[in-house]
Amino acid sequence: MDSKFMQPGATPGLSAIMEINAMQYTVIFQPSGCQAMVDSGKNLLAASREVGADIEAPCGGSEICGKCKVKIEESCLAGIGIHSKMVHLSPVTDKERKMLSPEELADHYRLACCAQIYGDVLVVVPEQSQALKQVVLEAGTAREFRINPAVRKYYVELNKPTLADCRDDFARLKEVLQSRFIQLDKTMQIDYKVLAKLPDILRQGGWKVTATLWNDSEIIAVEPGRAEKAYGIAIDIGTTTIAAYLCDLTVGQVLAQDSLMNSQVRYGDDVLARITYCMANDDGLAKLHQTIINDINDLIQKMTTTANVNPETVMEVVLVFNTVMHHITLGINPQYIGSAPFASVIREAVNIKARELGINIAESGYVHCLPLEAGFVGADNVAVLIAEQPYKQDKMKLVVDIGTNGEINFGNKEGIFSTSCATGPALEGAQIKFGMRAAPGAIAQITINPETQEPEFEVIGADARAALRARGICGSGIIDAVAELFKAGIIKRDGGFDKNIRSPRVRKGTDGKFEYVLAWAAETALGQDITITQKDVRAVQLAKAALYAGAKILMRKKGVDKVDAVTLAGAFGSYINKVNALVIGMVPDCNPEAVIAVGNAAGEGAKLALFDLDKRGEAQAVASVVHFVETATEADFQKEFMDAMFLPHASDRFPHIDPILERIPRR
Amino acid sequence: MDSKFMQPGATPGLSAIMEINAMQYTVIFQPSGCQAMVDSGKNLLAASREVGADIEAPCGGSEICGKCKVKIEESCLAGIGIHSKMVHLSPVTDKERKMLSPEELADHYRLACCAQIYGDVLVVVPEQSQALKQVVLEAGTAREFRINPAVRKYYVELNKPTLADCRDDFARLKEVLQSRFIQLDKTMQIDYKVLAKLPDILRQGGWKVTATLWNDSEIIAVEPGRAEKAYGIAIDIGTTTIAAYLCDLTVGQVLAQDSLMNSQVRYGDDVLARITYCMANDDGLAKLHQTIINDINDLIQKMTTTANVNPETVMEVVLVFNTVMHHITLGINPQYIGSAPFASVIREAVNIKARELGINIAESGYVHCLPLEAGFVGADNVAVLIAEQPYKQDKMKLVVDIGTNGEINFGNKEGIFSTSCATGPALEGAQIKFGMRAAPGAIAQITINPETQEPEFEVIGADARAALRARGICGSGIIDAVAELFKAGIIKRDGGFDKNIRSPRVRKGTDGKFEYVLAWAAETALGQDITITQKDVRAVQLAKAALYAGAKILMRKKGVDKVDAVTLAGAFGSYINKVNALVIGMVPDCNPEAVIAVGNAAGEGAKLALFDLDKRGEAQAVASVVHFVETATEADFQKEFMDAMFLPHASDRFPHIDPILERIPRR
Repeated sequence: MDSKFMQPGATPGLSAIMEINAMQYTVIFQPSGCQAMVDSGKNLLAASREVGADIEAPCGGSEICGKCKVKIEESCLAGIGIHSKMVHLSPVTDKERKMLSPEELADHYRLACCAQIYGDVLVVVPEQSQALKQVVLEAGTAREFRINPAVRKYYVELNKPTLADCRDDFARLKEVLQSRFIQLDKTMQIDYKVLAKLPDILRQGGWKVTATLWNDSEIIAVEPGRAEKAYGIAIDIGTTTIAAYLCDLTVGQVLAQDSLMNSQVRYGDDVLARITYCMANDDGLAKLHQTIINDINDLIQKMTTTANVNPETVMEVVLVFNTVMHHITLGINPQYIGSAPFASVIREAVNIKARELGINIAESGYVHCLPLEAGFVGADNVAVLIAEQPYKQDKMKLVVDIGTNGEINFGNKEGIFSTSCATGPALEGAQIKFGMRAAPGAIAQITINPETQEPEFEVIGADARAALRARGICGSGIIDAVAELFKAGIIKRDGGFDKNIRSPRVRKGTDGKFEYVLAWAAETALGQDITITQKDVRAVQLAKAALYAGAKILMRKKGVDKVDAVTLAGAFGSYINKVNALVIGMVPDCNPEAVIAVGNAAGEGAKLALFDLDKRGEAQAVASVVHFVETATEADFQKEFMDAMFLPHASDRFPHIDPILERIPRR
Repeated sequence: MDSKFMQPGATPGLSAIMEINAMQYTVIFQPSGCQAMVDSGKNLLAASREVGADIEAPCGGSEICGKCKVKIEESCLAGIGIHSKMVHLSPVTDKERKMLSPEELADHYRLACCAQIYGDVLVVVPEQSQALKQVVLEAGTAREFRINPAVRKYYVELNKPTLADCRDDFARLKEVLQSRFIQLDKTMQIDYKVLAKLPDILRQGGWKVTATLWNDSEIIAVEPGRAEKAYGIAIDIGTTTIAAYLCDLTVGQVLAQDSLMNSQVRYGDDVLARITYCMANDDGLAKLHQTIINDINDLIQKMTTTANVNPETVMEVVLVFNTVMHHITLGINPQYIGSAPFASVIREAVNIKARELGINIAESGYVHCLPLEAGFVGADNVAVLIAEQPYKQDKMKLVVDIGTNGEINFGNKEGIFSTSCATGPALEGAQIKFGMRAAPGAIAQITINPETQEPEFEVIGADARAALRARGICGSGIIDAVAELFKAGIIKRDGGFDKNIRSPRVRKGTDGKFEYVLAWAAETALGQDITITQKDVRAVQLAKAALYAGAKILMRKKGVDKVDAVTLAGAFGSYINKVNALVIGMVPDCNPEAVIAVGNAAGEGAKLALFDLDKRGEAQAVASVVHFVETATEADFQKEFMDAMFLPHASDRFPHIDPILERIPRR
């Protein structure tokens, strides 16, 4: 125990407050164990912020909300040599009397923002006062998390070396950190790049410095003086799209976000094509690896510029991806994931120094890769799961992450089954004649009048003031197009165009097959007609059949034939028309009101893992308990797949949308 | 030949210097043949460093020592199209006129540190200015150790993955390793460079592989099939000499050893000169760091070639060094070690991936640096201690490691005190007029007949078959010279030459001070007399006084006034004459039979730490329990030092060599 505890000055009467203003006292927060030496007169809330023992204070410490209740622990006080608790804090204020119940007051509760420190104290932060932070998603789902990042900053003041105390710089720093913040690891390490700069920084800061620790065990930065902000980046690396989020780790906020088309697309459209490229070219893996690293660095550079953050202050990157993207990003040969028995090289979470991968953040910063599940089901699905937490719910929920590789999860708190399927990039707007990303100019929503066969559509970025001419069709538009063509009777249950349709919109294309003109050349920014071709419809059928068949296999594994709720995750976010997703039979029948679209849940999961270490633990647990199903080995997958090629299905009923299906004109 | 030689601007008059400041010229050094394009105005010493044409410069280019004599070669100049030599260099300076003889000046000798380049030149580096390779000896003390290295190999056979058992490759390997070898760490990691190659190697080896583990906790290599040999390298990085040992870790054997002069010598002769170089040049630390890394890589390359070992199979390097060499090798600013309170940056043992330092062994191999003690007392002294283990003995032992920086230890199993002292490089043969390293041609042992004042000496490399002419005097020769001059009555107790001596060997040198001719010009390879000057004697007095005073301070700390035994460690190894070491008073009185010379004990300690992890634990324990004494803060150090300047001492008695001292003629 610090000798300060025993000093005569440590138990002053209030009258002595003025004289001992310059004194410091030890405050310990439980259950975190965070400990601080704080200046006399500082309130408990401010002290808690200094050590990262976050106490909930929605009013920001304005003594208004009454949320920052803490308990002064009497029993322990004696144990640490404190004789009386109240004399170590300023007296209970009128505000506290108003906002705390008589029972709480009797039980030594205080409001952290009101109680000032005039002696050593031990404080217990009850669960309801521990800070939780909400992220608001693109799709509007709120998720709670603790601000509990792997990267934390600690400000300390050291004694200068003297001839009598000639400890080395690192020992000096380590000992003060460990004595002030008891949660820190006893075997604390320091990255050697930081070590090289340490002596100059200590002296530059006049022996007052802020150390950045990773997992409370390794010093990954030291800055002169007081520094508070720590930044991190969460990245969801999809086969086709990469989405990134620059975050302030100290307050749990997204400062900038950006996305790019995965530049590997030029080497192949899906994971199998990428694997083939690696196998067929000696430098294939090296090229694909460098391509993704460049993309990541582009995103880091763009976001840090936007938010005016120095990339050198970004201390950690959390990555989620499917298994093949994971391997390629880490420079690991993905060949053996591509064929039975589909063994990956490492499934557990991986931490690598960013500089080893050539990722341009802080020199000593880390890259954390969430764990993989199995087969192609990667860290991205684990991220979706920790964001959506179907394993905490009673309802039988289907969680589908729609990307070039689709991941499907089904179950509830009794157990979750998961699989992946080769959706292809059609539902992201790729491999579609006029397909494009969900960007300005994309047709995102479509209706077709069954009487006239005339369409209406909405273009992303267009508003009442300015019409934006269409440039292509994005994923949600493709789903709408197929559903609307089917509802209007233009295409049949097998996906083929009805030859009996007589409409200027339906014609034979250059390939001799039917197509539907969605927008005439004059209405577009392209100067040519935007059409939905027979091939486009087939691509959507293949994609939705894969998803549907996967879901059916999982439902059978789970032993149920009914879905209570569906969560659709993916880049198209809130644009998706849930009813139309049912109309084409992308997922089994369900009440449309129980279908929600949550946007990029994988990205959300990555952010959660960046903000909260507990989420990483949850990820590891989830990755190892979810039951992975390899559809390739399921005897009836092919039959399920063929049946699901029909709109909405060859035989399965969709009672929830029967009224719609019944209205479909039959010619 | 570079076309620059023919450019009109390449032969300017001095008046043109200002205009051609930005030009570059070709400088060729003979006999090495090294060639450089250097900026106009750079001096020859700096140019020689750029190309590695090592020129002796003990003073680090401060225009003080006059050792960097080079000859501008006229005959060749014409051959390379240069018409006049002197106009290509800055004019001869006053310092050069003082330090070069009229004959040398007439013969176109220059000091490389003074002559600036303003045109193409061809430079001959005479033999005495060439840095020579040093022989590091072993005294052959047998030491016991366990074969218990940090690097161990484990052969395992794995089950192939199947659809029913689709664990990832790493988990599969880890689980078999952990189940077969229960000592292995449960949280086993794998270096990510190994991970990247893992899938191919497992399949190449038919799922039978050998994993190399570091500290039983991290996989740092995986090879197909069975592999047994693991190699490591121990390196003792001295201020002046680097000694390295390539070892077979599986049987605990040295396969090859080699040594180099520390190439940093060109930047200054002692640790303070190196610190000064770092402080005075923006890229000083980077240069010194790269220089030592290059030396290490040279040694690794030479030894692995000699022993026919693939450097990729060398898995660990153990380094020992003084504090300044430690910092520079790790790229850490050594500035603050140089002045009070002499704080180092990190004392505990450090493990760094070899690739992070650019050391060319196995990609995932490690560099282990033994812990430092304090001040300048570094890992090399810790290595000496774990090799000699004075802390396990009853006898009061003095262990002195003689290098450019001397380390002194005194005590027994009840406690050890240690300190360092600025010996200077005199005892290694540097900063001595005809000093050289213990290399072929060095006079290593001397006797002088007290009656005739005539010397006899032995030259390293000379044998019965071939006489090798002397080229200079190495450390053990210097000690002998001073002791023999003293015993013959040629120099007095205060180190001054006795003016009453009448001998052709004793004369006044060019500096007006006495000198003793050890070898006449005709007997040498230099074509000039090899002498021991008054200045040389003073340098030895300073060195031995520092060692003696340090030892006395430690004895006082220990509370004893008698030394039971003395261990002399250092590069000069077995050449040293123990009685003469007592005669000059290098160490306090002791029975000469209890004085042993053990050679490079620091290198021995490094090898022990490479072979046996327990020795690393011992090193950490020793480093933290040895009582470091900072002589700079000892009030009576100066008095002790002044008293020890006398031969053998101003007042201390040397009963064990009384018969010798009594025979000294007094004139």
